[in-house]
Amino acid sequence: MRIEIINTGSELLLGTTLNTHGAWMGLELLDLGMRVERQVTVPDGDAIISALEEAMGRSDAVIVTGGIGPTSDDISREAAAQVLGVDLIYDEAALRSLEAFFEALGKPMAEANKKQALNPVGADILPNPHGTAPGIYAPPRMSGDRLCALFLLPGPPSEMKPMFRAEVLPRLRSLGGVEGDYQMELLRFTGIGESDFHAQIDVELEKINDLEVGYCARPSEVDLRLIGSQSAISQGKEIALASFSEECFSIDGEDLEAVVVRLLTEQGKKLALAESCTGGRIASRVTDVSGSSAVFTHGFTTYADEAKISMLDIPSELLKSHGAVSEEVALAMAEGALIKSGADIAASVTGIAGPTGGTDDKPVGTVWIAIATTEKSFAVQRCYKRGRELFKQMTSQTALNLLRKSLS
Amino acid sequence: MRIEIINTGSELLLGTTLNTHGAWMGLELLDLGMRVERQVTVPDGDAIISALEEAMGRSDAVIVTGGIGPTSDDISREAAAQVLGVDLIYDEAALRSLEAFFEALGKPMAEANKKQALNPVGADILPNPHGTAPGIYAPPRMSGDRLCALFLLPGPPSEMKPMFRAEVLPRLRSLGGVEGDYQMELLRFTGIGESDFHAQIDVELEKINDLEVGYCARPSEVDLRLIGSQSAISQGKEIALASFSEECFSIDGEDLEAVVVRLLTEQGKKLALAESCTGGRIASRVTDVSGSSAVFTHGFTTYADEAKISMLDIPSELLKSHGAVSEEVALAMAEGALIKSGADIAASVTGIAGPTGGTDDKPVGTVWIAIATTEKSFAVQRCYKRGRELFKQMTSQTALNLLRKSLS
Repeated sequence: MRIEIINTGSELLLGTTLNTHGAWMGLELLDLGMRVERQVTVPDGDAIISALEEAMGRSDAVIVTGGIGPTSDDISREAAAQVLGVDLIYDEAALRSLEAFFEALGKPMAEANKKQALNPVGADILPNPHGTAPGIYAPPRMSGDRLCALFLLPGPPSEMKPMFRAEVLPRLRSLGGVEGDYQMELLRFTGIGESDFHAQIDVELEKINDLEVGYCARPSEVDLRLIGSQSAISQGKEIALASFSEECFSIDGEDLEAVVVRLLTEQGKKLALAESCTGGRIASRVTDVSGSSAVFTHGFTTYADEAKISMLDIPSELLKSHGAVSEEVALAMAEGALIKSGADIAASVTGIAGPTGGTDDKPVGTVWIAIATTEKSFAVQRCYKRGRELFKQMTSQTALNLLRKSLS
Repeated sequence: MRIEIINTGSELLLGTTLNTHGAWMGLELLDLGMRVERQVTVPDGDAIISALEEAMGRSDAVIVTGGIGPTSDDISREAAAQVLGVDLIYDEAALRSLEAFFEALGKPMAEANKKQALNPVGADILPNPHGTAPGIYAPPRMSGDRLCALFLLPGPPSEMKPMFRAEVLPRLRSLGGVEGDYQMELLRFTGIGESDFHAQIDVELEKINDLEVGYCARPSEVDLRLIGSQSAISQGKEIALASFSEECFSIDGEDLEAVVVRLLTEQGKKLALAESCTGGRIASRVTDVSGSSAVFTHGFTTYADEAKISMLDIPSELLKSHGAVSEEVALAMAEGALIKSGADIAASVTGIAGPTGGTDDKPVGTVWIAIATTEKSFAVQRCYKRGRELFKQMTSQTALNLLRKSLS
């Protein structure tokens, strides 16, 4: 079943409002095994007409949001009648609902609202318990060489979402039914790039029947999306994990910080963090996880040398002889955090976020990351020369991944 | 000038990733007085071809994001060549850049990456300093009955955004020029809601000729966008600031954390932070600002009671008698941070992020925020019951705003 979404609203194209309708509907439809094939955003006004013509000519169902309010730039209703080739007539029940809505508010109904009871001939009104604009459903009719159904929904999320669930999903289910039994699984990896997948397993994955493979690259992370039957997904998963089991931190979409908190919780261990260049980012990510207060106790954000000395007892000679960005200081920070907090495991980072502060020897992006437990300590060096924001994200990702590996 | 955006990526239609590219580009183009006429999202794979044909037939410029990576579902480059009716050839300079990129990483270049140096004949390569996928620019050529230019950009925001600013905006400006003389200014407010603007100044703003007013409400923030002639904007600004000067933290789009770092720098003051419930978020926001290392020294992330005692010398009796989430403990944390760090000003937060940990007396969302200087201390209470993520964002926003006001 080919479903397209058209979102209307100039604010979405100006960028002053983020369009979240498409992603929300995508997830709702995925639960039913359906997918959105295309999403189009058009401004208020006439652009809806051509977008609607195009979409109805190639889809089985088109869902429009917005443009059914009372003002003059709300023309989705008129556009739908034009594209369907029918007239608009007043729906008596919808008119009575509108009057009841305003009566409940204790306000007189403006004349402009009356047009919201207009309905293309042959279409059904979809009740809107949360606002004045009723939705519209035009059952499948020939459009080009295919049958296409049309839904018009209000723009405000608080009105659109309940109507989508109550009125749209059941109709789509009965129209098209669920195609096959396909599902989606999301595997998340860190420490490798998208090209590593292509080089090592893409060819093998492509051999699996009816498996759709997709990648999404994020800073220091690649998500592998497998869509298909349960058996096709299992085969794909096996291939991916045979090559990259160590880099895979989640087989169910879980965030890296949530994995770390879960491992700590399972093992009854406490975590401490000593951060210089990430400035609290790692602690903030860990404390984004509900339940982290049971396992994370102390965070030492030692941005200045004097903070490293006073908060973590780093000897000033060590800072002088090796510099703050060094293996020795990273190890001393992690060990200091462990001792100062009484935690079971600690991570530390010290590096040069930039844009200034680099030297020939230690360029911008250089970072040392150390892990200390009561049994052993180790440190690794990385260089993330990708700007301040990405430097912090990638460094925190690597530190969390080292914690995950140490706890696994 | 008619501009269309095509975003590729199945994850955008499945809903697992929110499409923020369109809104971001919309705002960037608005600064130049240009607007996006349509935005289309298609899945990975062949759908890009028909979307590209349609868009190029009715636009002056088409901007595509995504689908230029090294994997098999990345076909934007091939689709562009097909729609332009030209061959793909290797760009020697791009190939050398790719090799240099991997050399800097100390990794061998995968064979798959080589295809990223393919370029449609007659098109220019757009350098990508932040990743492996170079962009592509095909100068205007006849498409249907109009001239249309084409840009292909990488999908990851960290690569797309700098390339858009460095390579796309200047070319669009020279292609189409700025229409009219209208400009945009962005005023940012915190501590009031969008409805306060509607209630108090909307009617006055509407009276100004040729001024377009837009709002964007974010957690603990409202952005007021004024679009029009310089004189219309000045009138609008005056009205907004007459009512809400205290709540306005920026008249040029500057972030709140950047304002705080700037004020500290100007006054030669040092900042310390003591965070419980925000878990390092405030420190992380401050250290997102380049130059923050000169003014921010110590961050005490005291998530557990024992951390408050050991790191900030909070008396355990105080924690027992008032509880960790109290005015007394917030003040002691801020004062402790000031003493322990030797800073000039300190902020502290202690609260209940939830979802658990609330009581009748102190429900989830309760937070105390304190500011201490060498001269005085004070604390305020707030309740942000909006889920963990929003709680941390809103609390950090309020703390930074109190710092701003204390420094102003």
